[in-house]
Amino acid sequence: MPTAAMIVIGDEILSGRTQDVNVQVLAKALGARGIALSEVRMIPDDVDTIVGTVNALRGQVDNVFTSGGIGPTHDDITADCIAQAFGVGISVRDDARAILATNYVNPERDLNEARLRMARIPDGATLIDNPVSKAPGFTLGNVHVMAGVPKVFACMVESVMPTLTGGVPMLSDDVLIEKGEGALAGPLAKIACRHPDVSIGSYPRVVNGGFVVNIVARCTDAALLEAAMVELRQLA
Amino acid sequence: MPTAAMIVIGDEILSGRTQDVNVQVLAKALGARGIALSEVRMIPDDVDTIVGTVNALRGQVDNVFTSGGIGPTHDDITADCIAQAFGVGISVRDDARAILATNYVNPERDLNEARLRMARIPDGATLIDNPVSKAPGFTLGNVHVMAGVPKVFACMVESVMPTLTGGVPMLSDDVLIEKGEGALAGPLAKIACRHPDVSIGSYPRVVNGGFVVNIVARCTDAALLEAAMVELRQLA
Repeated sequence: MPTAAMIVIGDEILSGRTQDVNVQVLAKALGARGIALSEVRMIPDDVDTIVGTVNALRGQVDNVFTSGGIGPTHDDITADCIAQAFGVGISVRDDARAILATNYVNPERDLNEARLRMARIPDGATLIDNPVSKAPGFTLGNVHVMAGVPKVFACMVESVMPTLTGGVPMLSDDVLIEKGEGALAGPLAKIACRHPDVSIGSYPRVVNGGFVVNIVARCTDAALLEAAMVELRQLA
Repeated sequence: MPTAAMIVIGDEILSGRTQDVNVQVLAKALGARGIALSEVRMIPDDVDTIVGTVNALRGQVDNVFTSGGIGPTHDDITADCIAQAFGVGISVRDDARAILATNYVNPERDLNEARLRMARIPDGATLIDNPVSKAPGFTLGNVHVMAGVPKVFACMVESVMPTLTGGVPMLSDDVLIEKGEGALAGPLAKIACRHPDVSIGSYPRVVNGGFVVNIVARCTDAALLEAAMVELRQLA
């Protein structure tokens, strides 16, 4: 199965100011495409950390996705970091500038120096479409660089997915059981042993002061998945 | 400033089935205690990955926090992985068993083999209190091992915080500006230059189809922070 990693770039996530919602959006889209998200790293807006993390991960997985730091302000340093990670130049590119210009009635006047930063693209990258606010993301090698704003991120994910080599989609099913995990663990382990090709997870949560458990089974083969689910449903 | 890293352990996060909410809870608690969360990694339920990640991070930061994988079921492997990472033994410990027993009217009958898994604690660890459902977390060296269930995780964070060496708390303030970032970027960069001790971030989001920007300033010194905020508020 093809693999992917995600790098969430942003002091605002690590300070707790902002709740990340992009990981789940990407994870679901990758799962539907048969690509396994094998790691997420959340890191600060720091050049050396970004460059090091990109270079560490791009050799380990088939696809790396970044979110955050590609806007027009002084703290948007991701595009420069990606260029540095790949050892290539970066400059305002005509195709990106033309896309940005469509946002303005009077581009000559409104496409100021700050906004033009969003047309700075590392050499050799291809653009990622941004139907929300035009400013494109880009793909360089196996690294897909996308905006952090959730609405824009989600659209860029949609834009990128068809370009990726997918695998057999992971199927999943689940059953909610109103018991504590302690009462289920023994029989659950036996079911897991009998179905080695099905990944079975147990996810408790607190509802009205008591524990309920969501049992999730995952497998690329529908028949194997259903065979496990038949047994899992009997735990309820 | 003391540093921390978090390891979110769980296939359910990486598959997109579950939205993580624990990162933000920990990030806020650490910030209030003057500890910087410098990295988060989300990794699968895989022994080698967990052991490797714990050992990579515990040498890099002052505190490592893990969430997930300490329940009674077959997929709860975190405690064993921590023992392996530190090269110590793990067994059912009397103090942890006694705490678990308080959950049951008839512990002799109800504290079954699966539930006793939650009393397996690596040698040398100290317990972390869990007022929600008793089953304790634990601290071994500088690694704090906590439950993934958000309600339990949040309580364990409360239990651990007073035991940590804190620093000067990071203060922050913000101003919401109903303009696009492109119009603000120039003056914002100048303000950032004039206040080098204040970290200034610009976080756009889409509201009613248009962009608004939240400008966030962070500093450990209240007077320096306010001096920057005076200028930032004039951007509105």
